[in-house]
Amino acid sequence: MSRSINLAVIPGDGIGQEVVSQGLKVLNAVLPQDVKLETKEYDLGARRWHRTGETLPDAELDALKGHDAILLGAIGDPSVPSGVLERGLLLKLRFAFDHFINLRPSKLFPNTETPLAGRPDIDFVVVREGTEGPYTGNGGSLRTGTEHEVATEVSLNTAFGVERVVRDAFERAAARPRKKLTLVHKNNVLVYAGHLWKNTFDKVAAEYPQVTTDYLHVDAATIFFVTQPERFDVIVTDNLFGDILTDLAAAVSGGIGLAASGNINPTGAFPSMFEPVHGSAPDIAGQGKADPTATILSVALLLRHLGYEVEAVRIEDAVSADLAERDGTARTTDEIGDALAVRVAG
Amino acid sequence: MSRSINLAVIPGDGIGQEVVSQGLKVLNAVLPQDVKLETKEYDLGARRWHRTGETLPDAELDALKGHDAILLGAIGDPSVPSGVLERGLLLKLRFAFDHFINLRPSKLFPNTETPLAGRPDIDFVVVREGTEGPYTGNGGSLRTGTEHEVATEVSLNTAFGVERVVRDAFERAAARPRKKLTLVHKNNVLVYAGHLWKNTFDKVAAEYPQVTTDYLHVDAATIFFVTQPERFDVIVTDNLFGDILTDLAAAVSGGIGLAASGNINPTGAFPSMFEPVHGSAPDIAGQGKADPTATILSVALLLRHLGYEVEAVRIEDAVSADLAERDGTARTTDEIGDALAVRVAG
Ligand SMILES: CC(C)[C@H](C(=O)O)[C@@H](O)C(=O)O
Ligand SMILES: CC(C)[C@H](C(=O)O)[C@@H](O)C(=O)O
Repeated sequence: MSRSINLAVIPGDGIGQEVVSQGLKVLNAVLPQDVKLETKEYDLGARRWHRTGETLPDAELDALKGHDAILLGAIGDPSVPSGVLERGLLLKLRFAFDHFINLRPSKLFPNTETPLAGRPDIDFVVVREGTEGPYTGNGGSLRTGTEHEVATEVSLNTAFGVERVVRDAFERAAARPRKKLTLVHKNNVLVYAGHLWKNTFDKVAAEYPQVTTDYLHVDAATIFFVTQPERFDVIVTDNLFGDILTDLAAAVSGGIGLAASGNINPTGAFPSMFEPVHGSAPDIAGQGKADPTATILSVALLLRHLGYEVEAVRIEDAVSADLAERDGTARTTDEIGDALAVRVAG
Repeated sequence: MSRSINLAVIPGDGIGQEVVSQGLKVLNAVLPQDVKLETKEYDLGARRWHRTGETLPDAELDALKGHDAILLGAIGDPSVPSGVLERGLLLKLRFAFDHFINLRPSKLFPNTETPLAGRPDIDFVVVREGTEGPYTGNGGSLRTGTEHEVATEVSLNTAFGVERVVRDAFERAAARPRKKLTLVHKNNVLVYAGHLWKNTFDKVAAEYPQVTTDYLHVDAATIFFVTQPERFDVIVTDNLFGDILTDLAAAVSGGIGLAASGNINPTGAFPSMFEPVHGSAPDIAGQGKADPTATILSVALLLRHLGYEVEAVRIEDAVSADLAERDGTARTTDEIGDALAVRVAG
C-alpha cells in the first residue's frame, strides 16, 4: 500500500516561518518510509497584503481545498490594521472549510512552567465551536464616528451547528478514561443561545450514559481553571468562550509556547488546519528564539487526524521526554526542532 | 450638620442574608454618631418568586428609587430556572438604575490564598461597563426546540455608553499613583464594537496625557492575569469581558470570598448598588460558613460612593489587618463580622 500526504503550508507572519520549518522537520522525521509527503507553501499574510492588498484570493482558497491538510504558523502583524488578516485570512479559512471543531488540548508536562502553585495535574481538552457564535462577522455600525454611533455584534447559533460540536465532544469524552464532559456557557444572561446549547447538550447526553456531565458559567469556569484545573476532562463551548478559555488554559499549562490546536472538519469535506495557539510574536521574529513545540504538537494533531495515530503519539512522547530532560539552558528554535526530530526518528 | 443614609437592603438568596447582616453590623460600627442610618429590607429573590411569581414588581422598583444606595447579598437558587432571577431582578436593577460603572477592585491582601506561585503584587481595579454589550437581552430564537432552531444574542454598543465608562476609567486611572489604563476587548474579531471602543478610548486618551494606556485582546488579558497581574492598574472593558475577567481576578487575588463590587450610577440620578461578586452558594447557606468579607468590602465601596471616604478606608484597613493577623483557625460568618466591627469602631 502506498500512502501519501499532500500538505499545504502557510507560514504566515512573524515567527510563523521559523516554527513551521521545525514542524516540517519533525513531520519528515516521524513519517514511515512508505509515506510520500508533498508540501506546497502559500504566501499569505502581512507581506502579501502589503504587496497586493489581498488576504485570501479565491484562486488560493480553491487550491488549498485540494490538500489533505493545512499547517499554519501564525497570522498577524502590527503594520496591518487589526481585524484585516484575522477576518480576511485566518477566520476566512476556518469558515470556508467549515472547521467546526476547534480542538485545543491542555496538558501540564513535567518540568515546564506554570504560574500555579503546587503544579496541579492538568490534562484536558477544549472542544471549541469554530463556525458560529460572535465570530460570524454579523454586526455593523450606524452613524460611525459620531456621538450617535451604535455598533452591534450578533452571536449566531444554530441547532445544526451546536449539535454537531456537542456530539463530537461527547465522542471524545467517551473515548477518554475519565469520560467527563463540561459544558461552558453563560445561560443565565445569554438566555437564547444558552438555552439552545444547554438543551442540545442535555439531549445528546441521554445517548451517552457513560459520560459524566457538568455545566459551568464561563466566569465560574475561569476560577476553576486556576484553582482546580484537574477537575476538567473534556470541555465543550462556544467560539468566543473557547477563545478566551484556551488562552487561559495555555497560560496555566506550560505557557502559550506549548499550546497546539486543530481546526477540524471531521466530515473530510474540506482539509483541516493545524496551528499553534500563539500568535506571530513580531517582537522576537527572526531571532531563533521562538519555541516551535506548539507547532510540533500541532503536527501531532494533524497526523492523528489523518490516521497516523502511532506517529502522533511518537511526537507527543518525544515532546514529553524532551521537556522532562531539559536542563534550563536556553535553546534556539532550530535546536529544539533538531532534538525532537532525533527523538521521533530514533 | 445632620447627616443620614437611607439604605435599601436586598439580602436575596442562599448566603445573602448571612453576609448582609455582617455588612450592616460593620456599617453601624463604622458610622460616626451624627449619621442617622435608616435601612429597609426588600424581600426579593427565589422565595418571593416561588411565592408570587414576581421578580421585581414596579412598586418595589419605585420604592427602591427613593433610597441613597442599595446593599445586595446574592441572587440565585437552583430551584429557579437559570436566567429568571438574573435577568428579572439583578440585571433589571442594574439596567433600570443605569449602573453603567460596574466597579471591581482586586487586591491580594497579605496572608490570603492565591493559586498563583510567588504571590505577585496584585492591586488593580476593573471598570466594567454595566448597561450595554451582550447583556441587553437583545436576542431571540427561531423554530425553538426544533432541529432548525436559530438563536441569537446581540451585543449593543453606543458611543454614549462607551464614552461615559471610558471617561470614568480615565478619571480613576488619573487619580491613582501608577496612572495606567488598559482597554480590553477583542477588536480583531468583533470589529464593529471593537472599533467603537478603541476609537473612543484613543479619543479620550488625548485628554489625559498623564495616563499611560495599553490595549489587550481579552484572550491575551487572561494570560497576563495569571502570569503578570502586577502589570495592571485600571482596566476598562465591556460588560461580558468584565464579567469573565473579574471572576478570574477574584480567583487570583484571595478568592471570590473577598471580591467586592459596586454597580454605580455616578450621576446620582438613581441609587447605586453594592454587592459581593460571589453568588448565593446554596450548598453552604445557613451554616455560618460564608465569608462576609466581600460584602463588608462592598460596604466600603458604598461609603466611598456616598462621600464617607474616611470610613471606607477604615473598613479596608480593618480587613487588611484582620487578614494579616488570621491564624488559620476557621471562623464563622458572625465571628468575622464581629472582629471587623470591633476593628472599625476601635
Ligand atoms: C487571531 C484570532 C482571530 C484568533 C481567534 O480569536 O480565534 C486567535 O485568538 C485564536 O485563538 O486562534
Ligand atoms: C449573576 C450574573 C447575572 C452576574 C453577571 O453576569 O453580571 C454575575 O456573574 C456578576 O458578575 O455579577
